[in-house]
Amino acid sequence: MTGFDEAFRNELRELIRWRRDVRRFRRDPLPPGTVERLIELASLAPSVGLSQPWRFVLVEDAARRAAVRANFERSNADALAAYAGERAQRYACLKLAGLDEAPVQLAVFADRGTAQGHGLGRRTMPEMAEYSAVMAIHTLWLVARAEGLGLGWVSILDRADVIRALDVPPEWIFLGYFCLGYPQIETLTPELEREGWEQRRPWQDFVLRR
Amino acid sequence: MTGFDEAFRNELRELIRWRRDVRRFRRDPLPPGTVERLIELASLAPSVGLSQPWRFVLVEDAARRAAVRANFERSNADALAAYAGERAQRYACLKLAGLDEAPVQLAVFADRGTAQGHGLGRRTMPEMAEYSAVMAIHTLWLVARAEGLGLGWVSILDRADVIRALDVPPEWIFLGYFCLGYPQIETLTPELEREGWEQRRPWQDFVLRR
Repeated sequence: MTGFDEAFRNELRELIRWRRDVRRFRRDPLPPGTVERLIELASLAPSVGLSQPWRFVLVEDAARRAAVRANFERSNADALAAYAGERAQRYACLKLAGLDEAPVQLAVFADRGTAQGHGLGRRTMPEMAEYSAVMAIHTLWLVARAEGLGLGWVSILDRADVIRALDVPPEWIFLGYFCLGYPQIETLTPELEREGWEQRRPWQDFVLRR
Repeated sequence: MTGFDEAFRNELRELIRWRRDVRRFRRDPLPPGTVERLIELASLAPSVGLSQPWRFVLVEDAARRAAVRANFERSNADALAAYAGERAQRYACLKLAGLDEAPVQLAVFADRGTAQGHGLGRRTMPEMAEYSAVMAIHTLWLVARAEGLGLGWVSILDRADVIRALDVPPEWIFLGYFCLGYPQIETLTPELEREGWEQRRPWQDFVLRR
């Protein structure tokens, strides 16, 4: 039986509604053990065949952080160059990462090659390894936000360069680089919506019946 | 500021710990509007560039459900044939889907081709569309469980056959077929662990420092 009541469900909905991708961080460090506690909970996420294919890499070295930052600068300049006119101007004004301020930074990878799980559920869909690791990321995101912490997902990166910069096995699949820390501001509206980049559509737009 | 207190955080951790992939359902229907309410919350999940690339397909037609079931039977027989000895015997005993009993069934896809989001964050990592949709799935999973409902992710399917059976655009990427309903039993231990298929490892096994 479930022990969850309507009060909890309301707060869970509020957390989901309020979550946000945070890109503006205070520089204050997190209390020791915080990220480890979040990763411990993330490791309870669903995983195909109980394979736990997520790999968390805490990036602490200044030179490695600088390499990731340079990778982001290059990738973001390439992205900007692909836009034109007003859209390019808007893109140039967006703040897309908190790499300079976030006290904790981590990369997450998926290991398709893991023997754990004995391949169950991955035969027709090997990508289930990545999907499992993404659910661990999302778990970490929610528990971080419930503690008042912010998380931002940086995907504007060259994957092979990240693997080289962090010296991890080349067969791991890079899923994202994450900034974690105390947010400067909180808002119910996604930053991309506030900045006029895109608007959320109603859920009915994404549902078909068959 | 966050309005979440330690009592909520404890319940959230409990939900994450207790979640489970449910494969044994009661046949009772869900109250009208339940799945729509869950999808509405899932549509608040993070998405790259606010692209909302998730596509939910509610599968109601008996012939289409039967086609998915036949797809699963074929794919599962192929998977079984890849194991040998004791591992094959164990695999044959696992119940890997609730397709015969679950009152609600839905497929989830990602649409990489969506113009929504104007491509932001997807240039070096086009898979961000799938990762975003996986976070919507995980959101749906958690809110379903918080209501005492069970969800099971079926990945032992041929992707192209699912797309044909459900008559959706061939360029959509199939992420999973989901069974939703009231669970027959609740347990803190993953079914694959109870059945001796695999064991969970401690989170420390999945963390590197760089």
